[in-house]
Amino acid sequence: MKQALKASRIANASNKQTKDILSAVGQLFKDLPMDAPPPFTGEKVYNIVSKITNNADPYESIKLKNIKKCKSLVPHLQDLIDRSEDPLLTAIRIAIAGNVIDHGVNREFDIEQAIEDILKQEFAYFDYEKFKSQLDTVDEILYLGDNSGESVFDKLLLKQLGKKVIYAVKENPIINDTTQKEAGLIGINDLASVISSGSNAPGTILDTCSQEFRDIFNNSSMIISKGQGNFEGLSEEDAPIFFLLRAKCPVIARDLDVEIDSIIFKSS
Amino acid sequence: MKQALKASRIANASNKQTKDILSAVGQLFKDLPMDAPPPFTGEKVYNIVSKITNNADPYESIKLKNIKKCKSLVPHLQDLIDRSEDPLLTAIRIAIAGNVIDHGVNREFDIEQAIEDILKQEFAYFDYEKFKSQLDTVDEILYLGDNSGESVFDKLLLKQLGKKVIYAVKENPIINDTTQKEAGLIGINDLASVISSGSNAPGTILDTCSQEFRDIFNNSSMIISKGQGNFEGLSEEDAPIFFLLRAKCPVIARDLDVEIDSIIFKSS
Repeated sequence: MKQALKASRIANASNKQTKDILSAVGQLFKDLPMDAPPPFTGEKVYNIVSKITNNADPYESIKLKNIKKCKSLVPHLQDLIDRSEDPLLTAIRIAIAGNVIDHGVNREFDIEQAIEDILKQEFAYFDYEKFKSQLDTVDEILYLGDNSGESVFDKLLLKQLGKKVIYAVKENPIINDTTQKEAGLIGINDLASVISSGSNAPGTILDTCSQEFRDIFNNSSMIISKGQGNFEGLSEEDAPIFFLLRAKCPVIARDLDVEIDSIIFKSS
Repeated sequence: MKQALKASRIANASNKQTKDILSAVGQLFKDLPMDAPPPFTGEKVYNIVSKITNNADPYESIKLKNIKKCKSLVPHLQDLIDRSEDPLLTAIRIAIAGNVIDHGVNREFDIEQAIEDILKQEFAYFDYEKFKSQLDTVDEILYLGDNSGESVFDKLLLKQLGKKVIYAVKENPIINDTTQKEAGLIGINDLASVISSGSNAPGTILDTCSQEFRDIFNNSSMIISKGQGNFEGLSEEDAPIFFLLRAKCPVIARDLDVEIDSIIFKSS
């Protein structure tokens, strides 16, 4: 309900449209299974907002603004990576910092502050050694993107990984998540093949993804999953996933048994 | 939705009951008029909680705890009133401080801190002179109670008013509002005739009140209305009302054009 209201405002919904959105979202509850993962509900909620406001991409200008902002930080961040003792780890930290950009759960964030904090923050889970040894053995990585600004920082990590990467994005606009369009603007294609997950959920729920994507997923020997939405959809899957995220919501923090705002680098 | 979830927890609802409550509340939205005042919606929401949890008075123990706490402060507060330069005004301030006890909007409060703050706080509206001159001319006051702990402090004000008072309470339990039962525990009857408004809304909406109450209301030459719920229901009524409240929610603060947490002593 809170997200529906926020999204209505971002989509410039009229009062009447906002009321209709909240009514329609209210109707959803009855038919939602108790164990519906948040991205499942999220897709439905944001679809309602798009339909009622007749706006297929309410977050378009926000995404462009975030991409522009994040791009402006790239030279400095690339320099930080290059000069750091462990460039791969620094790139991972920066890619996690991008996860602070979130218009679904929280609207307030300061990306520069987040980077500064996360560069110094202790990981609550830190499966880095396992990550490095697995990285040595694989030829290809499936990388599950999250929000559009974050994808700018993902690109820095892609460079550092130095592997063939398949970068998965959402099929159609959903909140501020990266689609093919934003991936193109960022130039993810320079370093990875960008594919659609076939899903519009703000997170990866395999059942809602295309068969093509599921085949790639099931055949992957190493998967990097960015952000809460992907974690929520995939945390129970039996697959070689490394989750990179900031635990921004209390439910996820509790689920992982960490403090809120912890940074997570966790092997499945 | 947020209040429904909080109330579900207070009523010790099972997960299944909580889901059913949220589903039922979700269904409400479609049929709610856009201009439905919060107490109108509140009554429906809390009724759902009571029905589904089969608990007619989920806030019973909270009310008792608040009453006990507030009663324990009475000797000290009575002393403050007696020794103050303007005992009536001090009693009014203390009666407003009781308004901080609120399990609907906010669950966290510190009553002693609230009293200390409110004794020093500037009023955002201060129709005290008008109040005093009106008080001089009337024989009887209709006093609209709010929450149960607050009623303990209202009693101190009743004493100070020194007039015949009709103290109106809710017909049946609704959140932590005062009903005949709590009024009895507090001994409001020692200083006023306690009547029911005939309504179960957490605020006074005349349409939902009994004809008997409406007659009393319409014939009153001076009315004291405590709290946000009564203000929300009555702010547009053409009646000789003095509103005493703390503006705890942003919508009311905006409506009154005051900062949040302002204290209000406002003639209608």
